[in-house]
Amino acid sequence: MIGRLNHIAIAVPDLSAAAAKYRDLLGAHVGQPQALPEHGVTVVFIDTGNTKVELLEPLGEASPIAAFLAKNPSGGMHHICFEVPDILAAAAALTEGGARVLGDGKPKTGAHGKPVLFLHPKDFDGTLIELEEV
Amino acid sequence: MIGRLNHIAIAVPDLSAAAAKYRDLLGAHVGQPQALPEHGVTVVFIDTGNTKVELLEPLGEASPIAAFLAKNPSGGMHHICFEVPDILAAAAALTEGGARVLGDGKPKTGAHGKPVLFLHPKDFDGTLIELEEV
Repeated sequence: MIGRLNHIAIAVPDLSAAAAKYRDLLGAHVGQPQALPEHGVTVVFIDTGNTKVELLEPLGEASPIAAFLAKNPSGGMHHICFEVPDILAAAAALTEGGARVLGDGKPKTGAHGKPVLFLHPKDFDGTLIELEEV
Repeated sequence: MIGRLNHIAIAVPDLSAAAAKYRDLLGAHVGQPQALPEHGVTVVFIDTGNTKVELLEPLGEASPIAAFLAKNPSGGMHHICFEVPDILAAAAALTEGGARVLGDGKPKTGAHGKPVLFLHPKDFDGTLIELEEV
């Protein structure tokens, strides 16, 4: 079912400082910040050639990463995203297998404009997994 | 400096259970467990086509992931690894830039038999970064 690792997302308390470290210290290909108010984050993409690292900073009151940063004030790895060819088929198979899809169980439109869902981290060794249809 | 994302490592309390979930629930390409006693872990590689996920279970008394699992008993994302062309040059540039290389600051032979080093997570937003020379 799962294909490529689309990205790994890292929640950071200060996006410009984090982006500067990846650019200047690690010499990475770091993009410009993009505010995604409908997703409650400002994001910077880092292109590693084979996949992406996404640095996420909370945006607005109801940011989905606010609670994570309250628990981890220095930031940390937040989720990993795998590509799937058919997100409805993936959701059905996972639910039938006993895994929990977060929210109402239905795919939403993700930060890349594609259908996504998130799986309960308790079902996958403390790791929040996003699936994105590509 | 950094190139491809070589892998993301996830520490898990039960490697066979974790591997079975990735294989059976997520339909991933999951390899056989490999014991690496000199690195204190047993590892299962998951090939995502563009990169790898490595599931790590502690092996032996002095496992480098034992403390992490004591703090995170369900498991969790442990580190990410980027490829660099020259690890000594990377270590020198990072140290000069103010980032801390863990241990004595010198590259070691990593789990893939190649020179690696780890950067202090406090310098990179709570994320443990491994650099591997390829």
